[in-house]
Amino acid sequence: MSATAPAIWSLANPRVKAAVRLRDRRERETTGLTLVDGGRELLRALRQSVEVDHAFVCPSLVIGPDAAAALDALQKSGAPLVEISPAVLTKIAFGDRSDGLVAVIRQPSLALEDLAAVATRLVVVVEAVEKPGNLGAILRTADAVGADAVIAADPRTDVYNPNTIRASLGTIFGMPLAVATAPQALDWLVSSGLTPIAARVEAAETYLETDMGGPIAVVLGSEAEGLTETWQDPRVRSVRIPMLGAADSLNVSVAAAVLLFEARRQRMASGSQE
Amino acid sequence: MSATAPAIWSLANPRVKAAVRLRDRRERETTGLTLVDGGRELLRALRQSVEVDHAFVCPSLVIGPDAAAALDALQKSGAPLVEISPAVLTKIAFGDRSDGLVAVIRQPSLALEDLAAVATRLVVVVEAVEKPGNLGAILRTADAVGADAVIAADPRTDVYNPNTIRASLGTIFGMPLAVATAPQALDWLVSSGLTPIAARVEAAETYLETDMGGPIAVVLGSEAEGLTETWQDPRVRSVRIPMLGAADSLNVSVAAAVLLFEARRQRMASGSQE
Repeated sequence: MSATAPAIWSLANPRVKAAVRLRDRRERETTGLTLVDGGRELLRALRQSVEVDHAFVCPSLVIGPDAAAALDALQKSGAPLVEISPAVLTKIAFGDRSDGLVAVIRQPSLALEDLAAVATRLVVVVEAVEKPGNLGAILRTADAVGADAVIAADPRTDVYNPNTIRASLGTIFGMPLAVATAPQALDWLVSSGLTPIAARVEAAETYLETDMGGPIAVVLGSEAEGLTETWQDPRVRSVRIPMLGAADSLNVSVAAAVLLFEARRQRMASGSQE
Repeated sequence: MSATAPAIWSLANPRVKAAVRLRDRRERETTGLTLVDGGRELLRALRQSVEVDHAFVCPSLVIGPDAAAALDALQKSGAPLVEISPAVLTKIAFGDRSDGLVAVIRQPSLALEDLAAVATRLVVVVEAVEKPGNLGAILRTADAVGADAVIAADPRTDVYNPNTIRASLGTIFGMPLAVATAPQALDWLVSSGLTPIAARVEAAETYLETDMGGPIAVVLGSEAEGLTETWQDPRVRSVRIPMLGAADSLNVSVAAAVLLFEARRQRMASGSQE
């Protein structure tokens, strides 16, 4: 980005309009592109060699170490940078935490086959997830516990929704991630030697009684409807999180965290490095 | 509600306009009222004898067992019911999950003194919480683990924000809840015989090495800034949740869940009923 490059001040600029359209799911699906807002998120994308098609920069708003590091990494990546005014940034960015940076990226692959190469000791499957914020929070937790992969089975949101990216704090780019149907996901888990452990409110066994120290997949259903029939399968083990209060269910990202941190605790307690 | 009572069809009706104004924080603070959307949430409020000032009912949208039970409980409560059209409901309700019911309630007390009567074995303190959704999720988790109380220290949202009520699934009404300054909260915890256990990314000890089986308070700071200086106190024990991935922090409601479910696990493992 040259200091003398003409910045875009017009909201009617075609590139600005094209970026704004990417807030719409259909446009993301048609183009295979999506938006990344924020320095930390963008930095994590660049570290994972995500392909940046082009990026918008509002220099006066690039404040703080994450934003500065992301801008530096963007410049080194060779991606075309487009300078914009604060008003244009407000139009393109989501909310007020973009750090002056919004990138248009090519969505990384979500093919189940591409998970073949990853270690498979601890995997997370989330079925029929609807809210991008929940999927993002699950990705962030999967990152925290050192999970090997996340599979979205029959998701009801597009996985690269900008709000998912944001809620994941960009950890989505470092986490092997696939989309599949529920039967495909189950077959893949079993053929990969993982025991699927499904969270069900009606399960007889509690998660604390369950050995989660081996190769497992934690499987979570939608809050409204639970898991589908696919997971009523002799190859799947069901566990319950004991509920001591008035409500009978947890937020799906909280349920994921409870099971994943217990799996991690058991591995640490047994000295396993899995 | 008589079948012949005239339903409100006008968005300009003063009661409708007053209800809509309660979506605004200042109006909630001035009036001491707030809104409860949804059958399940309203049912939990009524079970806890929350005072309903009046409620709006759109009969054609009262569908499902929760909504029917809530309407029944509302009728028995003697609260004035106002019949409204679907268009008016859309104006008053938040989102599309009101179940045809929106109640205007008097906010229950948030005085720290009122917690004196509750058992104090497991308490949650959340400092400077900003997002109603996070506070609601923490209340829901506190309910699930059988916590005795939740304290919002210097909250940056009003606790009875309708989105908090919604995210808590109405468990907010069954959970003893107080607002205090951070120093007041700390003093109250210590004088109640609880050990404050503060989640800090830089703590030397991990939560898995920490005895959480006794009377404790789990203390969480804001995601952006962590805990304030108040909690740098010799009476406070700091613990860290090990992070194995790219990100260095968890969503605050996920961190709360990890610590609270570990506290519950330790109590179950030791056979304690606390």
